[in-house]
Amino acid sequence: MTSPLRIGVAGLGTVGGGLLRLLRQNEESLAARCGRPLQVVAVSARDRSKARGLDLSGLRWIDDARALAADPEVDLVVELIGGSEGVAREVVETALRRGVPVVTANKALVAHHGPALARMAEEAGAALAFEAAVAGGIPIIKTLREGLAGNSVKRVAGILNGTCNYILSTMRQTGREFADVLGEAQRLGYAEADPAFDVDGVDAAHKLALLAAIAFGRQVDFAAVHVEGIRAISATDIAYAEELGYRIKLLGIAERQEGGISQRVHPCMIPAAAPLAHVDGVFNAVEVEGDFVGRLTLEGRGAGAEPTASAVAADIVDIARDLRVPTFGLPVAGLAPAATRPMDSHVGCYYLRLMVVDRPGVIADVAAALRDQDISLEAMIQRGRDPGEAVPVVLTTHETREAQMRRALARIGELESCLEPPQVIRIETL
Amino acid sequence: MTSPLRIGVAGLGTVGGGLLRLLRQNEESLAARCGRPLQVVAVSARDRSKARGLDLSGLRWIDDARALAADPEVDLVVELIGGSEGVAREVVETALRRGVPVVTANKALVAHHGPALARMAEEAGAALAFEAAVAGGIPIIKTLREGLAGNSVKRVAGILNGTCNYILSTMRQTGREFADVLGEAQRLGYAEADPAFDVDGVDAAHKLALLAAIAFGRQVDFAAVHVEGIRAISATDIAYAEELGYRIKLLGIAERQEGGISQRVHPCMIPAAAPLAHVDGVFNAVEVEGDFVGRLTLEGRGAGAEPTASAVAADIVDIARDLRVPTFGLPVAGLAPAATRPMDSHVGCYYLRLMVVDRPGVIADVAAALRDQDISLEAMIQRGRDPGEAVPVVLTTHETREAQMRRALARIGELESCLEPPQVIRIETL
Repeated sequence: MTSPLRIGVAGLGTVGGGLLRLLRQNEESLAARCGRPLQVVAVSARDRSKARGLDLSGLRWIDDARALAADPEVDLVVELIGGSEGVAREVVETALRRGVPVVTANKALVAHHGPALARMAEEAGAALAFEAAVAGGIPIIKTLREGLAGNSVKRVAGILNGTCNYILSTMRQTGREFADVLGEAQRLGYAEADPAFDVDGVDAAHKLALLAAIAFGRQVDFAAVHVEGIRAISATDIAYAEELGYRIKLLGIAERQEGGISQRVHPCMIPAAAPLAHVDGVFNAVEVEGDFVGRLTLEGRGAGAEPTASAVAADIVDIARDLRVPTFGLPVAGLAPAATRPMDSHVGCYYLRLMVVDRPGVIADVAAALRDQDISLEAMIQRGRDPGEAVPVVLTTHETREAQMRRALARIGELESCLEPPQVIRIETL
Repeated sequence: MTSPLRIGVAGLGTVGGGLLRLLRQNEESLAARCGRPLQVVAVSARDRSKARGLDLSGLRWIDDARALAADPEVDLVVELIGGSEGVAREVVETALRRGVPVVTANKALVAHHGPALARMAEEAGAALAFEAAVAGGIPIIKTLREGLAGNSVKRVAGILNGTCNYILSTMRQTGREFADVLGEAQRLGYAEADPAFDVDGVDAAHKLALLAAIAFGRQVDFAAVHVEGIRAISATDIAYAEELGYRIKLLGIAERQEGGISQRVHPCMIPAAAPLAHVDGVFNAVEVEGDFVGRLTLEGRGAGAEPTASAVAADIVDIARDLRVPTFGLPVAGLAPAATRPMDSHVGCYYLRLMVVDRPGVIADVAAALRDQDISLEAMIQRGRDPGEAVPVVLTTHETREAQMRRALARIGELESCLEPPQVIRIETL
C-alpha cells in the first residue's frame, strides 16, 4: 500500500460533515478500493467554534480556506464552500494553479467558470471533478462522460432540483397553493430561507448547463439557458394537469437540434405514465437519450449530506485511483463553442389557462388570436359557469412554435375580457 | 493525437454488428474522447460467408478467433462469442496472457471463471472489462465499481433478464398463459429457440453473481445463487397479484446480511407502486441501496445490438483512456472469499396458491400446517365456490423463515385435499 492521499476539506456545512463521516465510516473499504488510504489532514470553515457534531481531533484547522488550498501537505482539495465567486473560486484556482486536484460540489462556480477552470486544470495536469454538483448522489456526470462515451447523445432531461420537486409533489398530493407549501418546506429544511435560487429555476439551470456541456461536448453556456421557475404554478393548474392526464414537473432539458443545442428549464406537463412523472419528493432523476443506448434513466437522492458526500467520495476515489478524464469529457480545446438555439424557435404543445369574464364571445376572441398565429387547438375546458364573473378557461394546443405562441399570448393578454396574464405551461411528451 | 488503438472483434453476431456500426458512426467523437482513433483491424466469426449487412472491407478476417487474440497487431480484443467454455474462454485467456486487454459481453464466462480471469488480467497488467455482460446498456458495473465507490452497499436488486420481463409484462397486459406468450416471444425474436437459460433464471443468476461480487467486494460465487425461473407462473397468479396490489417480476437480489451475502433469483411479488414495478417489456432496471447514497435506480434497455454495443464501447473507451480499475473493483487478493447465506435462512413474506377440493375442513388443515411452523397468515382469498371440485385458495403470510415455510409446504402438499403442488411466490417490499 502506497502513501495516503492527504485531503483538505474547505467548508464544513452539511455536505462537509457528511463527507467526514463517510471517509471515517468506510475508511477500510476505501483504502482497499483506492490501493492507498484516504486521509483528511486539514479542514477550514468560517466559524471554528460552531457546534457541528463532528470529531475534528487530529485534523489541522486552517482559518483561511485559501491557505488550505495552498498547503504543501494537502494532495487534494475538496471545495464545499459554494458560490460562483469569492473564496470558493479562489480556493479552486489556488489549488489547480499548483497542480493539486480539486473536487467540488459547487454548481454555480462550474456553470459560470467551467471552461476557464478546466483549462487551468488541464494546463496543470490536475483533475477538476464535480460529480456532486449535479443531482446529488446520482452518478450522472460519470455516466455521461464515461458510461455513455460510445453514444452521440440526443437529449438529456431531468428533475434537477429537489426543492421544486418536493413543492410540486406536495401541491399535487394536498391541493395546497405554492406559497403555503414553500413555507412548510422552509420549516422542514427542504427550502432555503431565500428560496429564489431553487424556485426560480437558477439552480436547475446551473446543473443543466453542466450536463449539456458534457453530453454534447461543448463549452458551458449558462447564460443561454432559458429559465423559468415554479412560483406561478397554482393549485388550479395542478388540478387541470391531473384532469388532462399530466403531472407538472420542473424539468431541465437540453437537446441536440438543427441549428444547435436547446437548453431550457421550466415547468412542464408530462404524461402521468412517463417515468419522470413518478419521481416524487426530494428525489432527482435524469433521462438520457443516446443513439445506441436508447433511453437510460437514473433516479436517486438529489441533495442532502449523505448522497452528496457519496458523489464527492466517488470523485476522490477516481483521483486516488489515478483515473484521468478531461473535466468535460474532452480536452478544453476540443469543446465546441456554445451554439444555443433561441427559445423562440422551440416547437411543442402548450397548456394555457386564462381567467376570463364569463360572457358570450370571449372564447371566440381567444380562438381568433390563436388562429391568426396558425396555432391549432387540441382541447378546451371551461367547467364552471358564472355569468359576468371570472372563470378559468383551459386550452391545449397542437405543436406550435414558441414565437407564434408569444405573439398570440400578447394579443390574448390585451383582451379586455382576459383578467390576468395568461398562464402558459409547455407540454413535453418525453 | 497518438497512434490508433487497434481492435480485434471475435464474434460477429447481433452485438458484434452493433459494435462495428457504433465505432463507425461515432468514429470522430470517440477519437476526440479517447485522444486517439479507435480502429477495428481484424474480425473473426464462425461463418465467413454469412450475410450480415456489414461492410467488412479493410478488415482482416481471421478464421480462428484464438489466432485473432494472439495477433501482434491487435491491441485490444473484444470477445462476443459467448459461452462459459471453449473458444470464448480460450480467446480471453490467450489475450490476457500476452497482456492484451479484453472487453467481453460474456456473463457466463465471467460468472464461472471471473476470479481466475481477473487474476490473469492483474498479473499481465491488462484490463478485463465486462460492462456489457450485465443489464445491456445500463452502466451498472461502472456505477458500482466507481460511481458508488464511497459506499458500503447493502443491497442490489434488479430486473436482469429482458425475456422474462417481456413475458411477465405481456402475461399481465393480456391475461394469457406463460407457454402462449413464450411462443410469441420466440417468434418475435425476444426469446431463444431454447429459452431455458432465460426463463429458468440462469442468465439473471449469472448477472446477479457478477453484481454481487462487485457490490460486496467478494469472489464471484455463481454456484451459490438460489435460482428459480418463471415457468410456473400462471395467469391466475398474475390476476391474484393484481388483486393484492402487487406485480410479479423475476428479480435478482443480493443482500448483505448477518452471516454473509444472500444471492437469489426468483419470481417476486412487489408492490405495484415500487419503482421496479413500472419497468415493463424488455427494459432492465437495477436498484442499489448504499449506506450514503441511499436508493439509486438505473433503468434502460437490457439487451439488443445497440444498447449492448454502447456498453462494449464504454469499456473500450475506458481502456483507450487508460483508466484502470481492478476487474471486480478490488485487486483479486482483496476479494473476500465467498460467504453466501443459504436460502433456508431467508426471512420474508410469502404468497401461496393451492388448488384444493372445495369441501369443509380443507382450510383448517392448511392453517394447521402453517400454525405448526409458527407461520402467521396475513390474508386468505377463496373466491369461487364449487362444492366437491377444485378451487384456488390464496394465502399470504407475515414474515417467516424459508425453512419453516418449506416444512409447512411439504405437509400441505401431502394433504389429500390438495390437488397440485402448492405455488409459492415470495413477496418483496423493496
